[in-house]
Amino acid sequence: MKFYQKELNLKPKNRGFHLITEEVLAVISEIKNISIGQLHVFIKHTSASLTINENADATVRKDFESHFNHLVPESMPYFIHTYEGLDDMPAHIKNSLLGCSIQIPITNGSLNLGVWQGIYLCEHRNSGGSRSLVLTAFGK
Amino acid sequence: MKFYQKELNLKPKNRGFHLITEEVLAVISEIKNISIGQLHVFIKHTSASLTINENADATVRKDFESHFNHLVPESMPYFIHTYEGLDDMPAHIKNSLLGCSIQIPITNGSLNLGVWQGIYLCEHRNSGGSRSLVLTAFGK
Amino acid sequence: MKFYQKELNLKPKNRGFHLITEEVLAVISEIKNISIGQLHVFIKHTSASLTINENADATVRKDFESHFNHLVPESMPYFIHTYEGLDDMPAHIKNSLLGCSIQIPITNGSLNLGVWQGIYLCEHRNSGGSRSLVLTAFGK
Repeated sequence: MKFYQKELNLKPKNRGFHLITEEVLAVISEIKNISIGQLHVFIKHTSASLTINENADATVRKDFESHFNHLVPESMPYFIHTYEGLDDMPAHIKNSLLGCSIQIPITNGSLNLGVWQGIYLCEHRNSGGSRSLVLTAFGK
Repeated sequence: MKFYQKELNLKPKNRGFHLITEEVLAVISEIKNISIGQLHVFIKHTSASLTINENADATVRKDFESHFNHLVPESMPYFIHTYEGLDDMPAHIKNSLLGCSIQIPITNGSLNLGVWQGIYLCEHRNSGGSRSLVLTAFGK
Repeated sequence: MKFYQKELNLKPKNRGFHLITEEVLAVISEIKNISIGQLHVFIKHTSASLTINENADATVRKDFESHFNHLVPESMPYFIHTYEGLDDMPAHIKNSLLGCSIQIPITNGSLNLGVWQGIYLCEHRNSGGSRSLVLTAFGK
């Protein structure tokens, strides 16, 4: 049984959806030692999130940003938690809609992702700053 | 390799979003025996859900309730599944938007949460009753 | 410590929400050997997703399809990624709202689901074709 854990501190990114698959893999290359297992990626923040989606066409990621702004607009009249900026409360809600962790199967030393799947860092703040991830790979 | 599992039966809570981090930790203190691992928290219901979000200001949780009611209103004209009450079908959809499980990394005997992260029980029914969680902590 | 992994290729399904609990269990019967653990189910696609919800009344699944079409309509004026069909970009967004993996606790050789919980395959494309899942069961 093998357990590996690393922290990955991502440089500040613009508000929007960003592919980070390569950055994740570079930090936890011990996946190659696991024949069956799981990679758990966790973001330690409540205004940026993680998801898995299409890894090829950047327009998909632009449409994600547009539609999440549609689903959770700024300045909803019922928002009470407004003192941290107009983008703060929507960022919290987007975070829970998308989630703060992803789990990917490991098979024969590699992530068992579909051909079109990549890991997204979803930055919901205008100036979110650096983001910390905890990567845990385990298996046999 | 260590595996611990507990059931936690939460007392009925009002419709809305509630911080339960302390209730969870009180039940599965064996986390302290794990240096690298994961805590999996699962809710055995389809009309209440789990998420991780901001643990400090109660107004965030009020805004969650307001906005999820906006995203999934009662009495949508196309709802067919209406015989269990107006709040039932929206509760099912909110449950899947937020999810029924969370996974948190364990590091050096503690949950490796961000400073502002806490566990929410999201009660989507007007009278949801007691809710059962399954907590599984594992690692080395 | 036990680790089992299987691939499950589901036959093409109509756009909509489908119960697949029995299909999943038939493929990974080794769950019976695990006293405490987790089943991780992962879908290798970006336009179909997995969730857990009500397993009894088919009208719930119809209302899911109606409401997700309301949350993510086709032909939003700001969509740029349109060359793969009107149903493609909404499918990607629905995939991330619902997620591509579920984690279920294993207790005494069985999935520890609530009485009303079942596993849904959520097909978001009009002609999505076959879908591949990776099932990983682990525990002691």
